[in-house]
Amino acid sequence: MSYDLLLEHLKKTTALGQVSGILGWDQETKMPTKGGVQRAEHMGALEGVLHGRRSDPRVAEWIDAIDVDALDAAGKANVREALRAYSTAVKVPADLAEALAKHAARSQGIWAKARAAQSVSDFAPTLKEMINLKRQEAAARQEGNTSLYDTLMDDYEPGMKTSEMSDLLGELRTGLVDLRGRISESGKVMPKLSGNFSKENQMALAHELPAIFGYDWEAGRMDLAVHPFCSGNGGDVRLTTRVDLENPFDCIYSTIHETGHGMYEQSIPNADSLAPAYSYASMGVHESQSRMMENQIGRSRAFAEHLFPMFQKHFGDIGVETPDDFHKAVNRVRSSYIRTESDEVHYNLHIMMRFDIERALIEGELEVDDLEAAWNERFEADFGVAVDTPANGVLQDVHWSVGLFGYFPTYSLGNLYAGELFAKMQSDIRGLDGMIARAELDAPLEWLHRNVHDHGRMKAPGQLIEDAVGHKASAAALLGYLNAKFGEIYDV
Amino acid sequence: MSYDLLLEHLKKTTALGQVSGILGWDQETKMPTKGGVQRAEHMGALEGVLHGRRSDPRVAEWIDAIDVDALDAAGKANVREALRAYSTAVKVPADLAEALAKHAARSQGIWAKARAAQSVSDFAPTLKEMINLKRQEAAARQEGNTSLYDTLMDDYEPGMKTSEMSDLLGELRTGLVDLRGRISESGKVMPKLSGNFSKENQMALAHELPAIFGYDWEAGRMDLAVHPFCSGNGGDVRLTTRVDLENPFDCIYSTIHETGHGMYEQSIPNADSLAPAYSYASMGVHESQSRMMENQIGRSRAFAEHLFPMFQKHFGDIGVETPDDFHKAVNRVRSSYIRTESDEVHYNLHIMMRFDIERALIEGELEVDDLEAAWNERFEADFGVAVDTPANGVLQDVHWSVGLFGYFPTYSLGNLYAGELFAKMQSDIRGLDGMIARAELDAPLEWLHRNVHDHGRMKAPGQLIEDAVGHKASAAALLGYLNAKFGEIYDV
Repeated sequence: MSYDLLLEHLKKTTALGQVSGILGWDQETKMPTKGGVQRAEHMGALEGVLHGRRSDPRVAEWIDAIDVDALDAAGKANVREALRAYSTAVKVPADLAEALAKHAARSQGIWAKARAAQSVSDFAPTLKEMINLKRQEAAARQEGNTSLYDTLMDDYEPGMKTSEMSDLLGELRTGLVDLRGRISESGKVMPKLSGNFSKENQMALAHELPAIFGYDWEAGRMDLAVHPFCSGNGGDVRLTTRVDLENPFDCIYSTIHETGHGMYEQSIPNADSLAPAYSYASMGVHESQSRMMENQIGRSRAFAEHLFPMFQKHFGDIGVETPDDFHKAVNRVRSSYIRTESDEVHYNLHIMMRFDIERALIEGELEVDDLEAAWNERFEADFGVAVDTPANGVLQDVHWSVGLFGYFPTYSLGNLYAGELFAKMQSDIRGLDGMIARAELDAPLEWLHRNVHDHGRMKAPGQLIEDAVGHKASAAALLGYLNAKFGEIYDV
Repeated sequence: MSYDLLLEHLKKTTALGQVSGILGWDQETKMPTKGGVQRAEHMGALEGVLHGRRSDPRVAEWIDAIDVDALDAAGKANVREALRAYSTAVKVPADLAEALAKHAARSQGIWAKARAAQSVSDFAPTLKEMINLKRQEAAARQEGNTSLYDTLMDDYEPGMKTSEMSDLLGELRTGLVDLRGRISESGKVMPKLSGNFSKENQMALAHELPAIFGYDWEAGRMDLAVHPFCSGNGGDVRLTTRVDLENPFDCIYSTIHETGHGMYEQSIPNADSLAPAYSYASMGVHESQSRMMENQIGRSRAFAEHLFPMFQKHFGDIGVETPDDFHKAVNRVRSSYIRTESDEVHYNLHIMMRFDIERALIEGELEVDDLEAAWNERFEADFGVAVDTPANGVLQDVHWSVGLFGYFPTYSLGNLYAGELFAKMQSDIRGLDGMIARAELDAPLEWLHRNVHDHGRMKAPGQLIEDAVGHKASAAALLGYLNAKFGEIYDV
């Protein structure tokens, strides 16, 4: 009885949370410029409602009255998630929660304008206020010997701590710096596409991709956004992508990446029941699905057999003549200003930099006034080139403008998880390369359903990966994959 | 103090109501097919929240503590609207309110499919349940000697009663039947467009229209929908239109019509304050703005001077040679199955039919099983032709599927109000015809701002029109306009 009441309450809260997601999608893809002021009020009011529901004293009463041991796995997960949300919500004052939601809604537009105007100072006051609010939130929620940053990271990767994340990223960093050095010393330059990549042709090709990766168009759609993302759940999961006329890979791999996220959301069983047990496991696990589709599959030599003729069909002459050269063009390694455009060798160096910087901002070790200098200094040290403009530097990502602190490291964690899952999938599925070359992904998708999607949020994310691959996740699988792949391409 | 608390509460409720509007827009324009189940949960959960806020006991306490006489006009309107919403909400049980919202979200998709499949029986069970729920709602809210239908109509036209509406429509009906008879007896047939009206060219023309009628594109956008509508407020007011390849007037006049609604919403001062005083006066007044733009201005001989060359520019040869013939083609009078495509002479006959039928459904005098027969019989009697398919008959309108009973008559009321307002505007603004011919509508828009938009919801709708034109609204002005216009075109 208490459980039924709790579940009914949770489902309505989930529904209202999804409404917030739809508003977010709309804001990024459809909302007119002058709608920002009202939209901030919409998000604030909705956040107030969500906060009230999560901190409803009846939630604690219901949970107290439930015999958790008698529940099935989904039931246990529902109670655990309710308690998690309740504990968080009762610690954060309602006015702070609402202020955060309203500020995020406003701040995003200010960031977009500042980025277009190449003006860090236009964004600085807004960012200061965001950090101030996030620090207040973290301080209110902080428990035991966890740091402010730990507290925020827990929203995206439940249970993850700064120390564990630092260890995993440190292991990865050592391997990446070594690989990057060898590639750089080789002096080799990979082929580059050249041709006419019109927006229409890029989007036509992009629309042919999601179905290959298991995406159901009747339960989704695709639009353009400045910063591609995937939004929604179950029967309504929306992709976004973007078009760079000079570089079609941006559109194509953004599309495959977001499709990986979307396929995960569409694949979770009972997603339309709105019960918390039937949602994604963590942002790290989410990212493992998008990155595996994008990289381990989408950027593989095997998939080049399928993707190269698709490029020829849509763009005609693209300046490379064979699947082999196409694969090399896809996997050119070079320092890039932009995280989302960077290759697999540099990508995680981008993340580590953001991880260190945002931790310092949240822990009060770095001020916004010193942020641009800190960014540019670190970038030059890690990437060997100086940042040329703020849009190519500290203003490039949307995350901080909407209050996503503690989110960046889940990208690298997702890469680690993708490395682990793909290695196991390779050993479990005979003939995987051939399937990928023919773009017949039923077997790998079925493997992912069984080992990842079907479990929803019922296991802790680290446990989910451990159960899937048979050992605790480390950087070894990802490094093994990267060394083999780029070792072959660059002959190093 | 109590007033400030009340106002803060009202603003958040308005914000959440606008969220529901955005979800509605999304559902009609962007939502994937399989999103319907979750969307029903979203709408239901949101309606539950809105109902809880409107019936919050603190609202009554705050209102009791306010010295209303000391408030300004906006303050008085805010308190009046709060009390109105509170009184309604406390009478409707929360589970009924939520059931209605969920049923409406589901029912709309079922209607759309039934319409496409030409199957009344596919929609009948859903409609029965909707009428059952609306009757329950009306019975719960019914007061004194008002009818169930009065109660529902009050949502759209505050204070309007069935008897008053019947009198106004009856006066209009007499005049229309007479005019229609004379036109029919004349045996004259007006010119008809012919040409190639591609979707792209129709949409290109459609996008040039809203700005003429005062619409601000930075505070809006336009999309396609099965049933065109306008949605949103203040800085985010969205238009929809549709394309019929055979008949470009459908797209063009739907666009102008929805622009009239949109321009009204964009013009209300302080709309982004979210205070109820700064919202539209009633659905009848809303419709007066759309219909005046569409008909009194958009279908005038003067505007043909501007619109005819626009048609030539976008479509080349359109089969008529002069603005005069174009004006006649725009104003062809003929029986049409579809309300939204019908001419100014027949339009209100469509409405009167729906008014009588839906009143009978709500009052329990007509069953859903007998609805199609009743519709077809009445249509043949009023329009002189037999309904050929359900999509051209009882399944044509979205309204009943989403629970809009009592809404239809506000369309005719809007036409009446448009007739009154335009007659007064003509006598107030010298050279109005010339302005319309040049598509320079600053002066009429300013007149509407001053006499209608600036007052928001601060006056009762009937009073608003009476103050604007100097007498109580009747059908006389509209009939005078129609007799003059069609008398000249048909020489009757």
